[in-house]
Amino acid sequence: MTSIAENQNFKVLFSFFLLVLFFSHTVSVFPKYTDQKKPCKQFSFYYHDIIYDGGDNAANATSAAIVNPPGLGNFKFGKLVIFDDPITMDRNYLSEYVARAQGFYFYDKKLGVNAWICLTLVFNSTEHNGTLNIMGADLMREPTRDIPVVGGTGDFFMARGIATVETDATEGLRYFRLKMDIKLYECY
Amino acid sequence: MTSIAENQNFKVLFSFFLLVLFFSHTVSVFPKYTDQKKPCKQFSFYYHDIIYDGGDNAANATSAAIVNPPGLGNFKFGKLVIFDDPITMDRNYLSEYVARAQGFYFYDKKLGVNAWICLTLVFNSTEHNGTLNIMGADLMREPTRDIPVVGGTGDFFMARGIATVETDATEGLRYFRLKMDIKLYECY
Amino acid sequence: MTSIAENQNFKVLFSFFLLVLFFSHTVSVFPKYTDQKKPCKQFSFYYHDIIYDGGDNAANATSAAIVNPPGLGNFKFGKLVIFDDPITMDRNYLSEYVARAQGFYFYDKKLGVNAWICLTLVFNSTEHNGTLNIMGADLMREPTRDIPVVGGTGDFFMARGIATVETDATEGLRYFRLKMDIKLYECY
Repeated sequence: MTSIAENQNFKVLFSFFLLVLFFSHTVSVFPKYTDQKKPCKQFSFYYHDIIYDGGDNAANATSAAIVNPPGLGNFKFGKLVIFDDPITMDRNYLSEYVARAQGFYFYDKKLGVNAWICLTLVFNSTEHNGTLNIMGADLMREPTRDIPVVGGTGDFFMARGIATVETDATEGLRYFRLKMDIKLYECY
Repeated sequence: MTSIAENQNFKVLFSFFLLVLFFSHTVSVFPKYTDQKKPCKQFSFYYHDIIYDGGDNAANATSAAIVNPPGLGNFKFGKLVIFDDPITMDRNYLSEYVARAQGFYFYDKKLGVNAWICLTLVFNSTEHNGTLNIMGADLMREPTRDIPVVGGTGDFFMARGIATVETDATEGLRYFRLKMDIKLYECY
Repeated sequence: MTSIAENQNFKVLFSFFLLVLFFSHTVSVFPKYTDQKKPCKQFSFYYHDIIYDGGDNAANATSAAIVNPPGLGNFKFGKLVIFDDPITMDRNYLSEYVARAQGFYFYDKKLGVNAWICLTLVFNSTEHNGTLNIMGADLMREPTRDIPVVGGTGDFFMARGIATVETDATEGLRYFRLKMDIKLYECY
């Protein structure tokens, strides 16, 4: 009788194994972590934007406004800038870039400074190959602000997460630097 | 022999426990619901857009076109508008706003009216804190149309879902109001 | 003693069953596949863009630049185009379209040709009904490039994946054709 009981148990156990294997297959191809407190990937860098002034800074410029703001308020409401900005590991914009940030931003506040940004980080280094897409309001009045990471390719296939952005420096109207901290919560 | 069988069974059971615990950890931090029929969060509100006419409505205006359409067709193809629009719980645009909708839309149909919109809902109320990003075609000929919610921050960390949009009112070229029904299917 | 051991085992087994059932419910409403090697949906088509030249091609044109580039470099940096482009199954742009691609692209490279694109595929055929949103850098120097699919509606409710894009033909400045291969890895 013992051996029959064992048999029965093992049948049940075996069907569990199948179920668990099935889940393990389904689950193993899922994001490894989606824990709000523990990103599956995290890294920081600096974003440099040198705005073309229409004159002699063309050689250094990495972005340009394509329209004049329509005159609503005093905070550049409607100014739209397209950029191909270098991403470096340290604060020096002349350092070797580890990625390019390609995209656009515009100012959208009548009574204050506020921006909206959409960009692709294009990585092509020994460390990372692929892209990450970031989009959303850049609430410039707040010292740090979160912007969603909505997709990626290559090393960042299907990635999602949060970019925490901080203005690190500004030099008049010609230059600003952001510190970006990328935290991915869906990695494949 | 029975006790050995039990021992063996419990070994297997124990390894199952470990597996299940592993899954339970992995799974528990996933979206709570991804059921197409049952959103994990849902709420409705009104979006108001008062377009700057370049003249005396600057005080009330919440959006402005930044280019003149290039003249392809008769339906404002290529008109690009940037906005910082109030979101209210009722139809009155003078009601206290519960969020701002910051983003842009443009018209993109040669032989009819059609738009494309991309915006961030910026919540900063006692009820909600955080942002939600919405983007996609706004097929204005259809009475209601779905637009994807592709990301969020704060209370809406990593959220995804659908915004169902309906034109609720228009007043000439100066004002329109949308009813927006947000349904989130991935909540964290 | 054997029967008690069995009892105990079955109690444990039963609690396992409950756990597994719980997971099976949670898991079953998840994306069916998220296997990087096996998309849950895949299809290819052609995207046609006929750029309005401001003159006599208005009848055929499906896109128009809305600004003149600001003059940074020699590669149309800052040229912004809005489009409502036909999607066909074969290379002939006069074939019946199976979807419209509505969105915008701009050039963003000072020292070379490079673009950034954001669009909604609007399907309305017997085969597909719904939309898919694609956004990201279009690294035109590479023969094929991946761009994330970040959301969808209708038949593509909550979809995510990758669009692999390839320039299939260009005719001067007036026309280009892309081959697009859509691979969805999250389907509902």
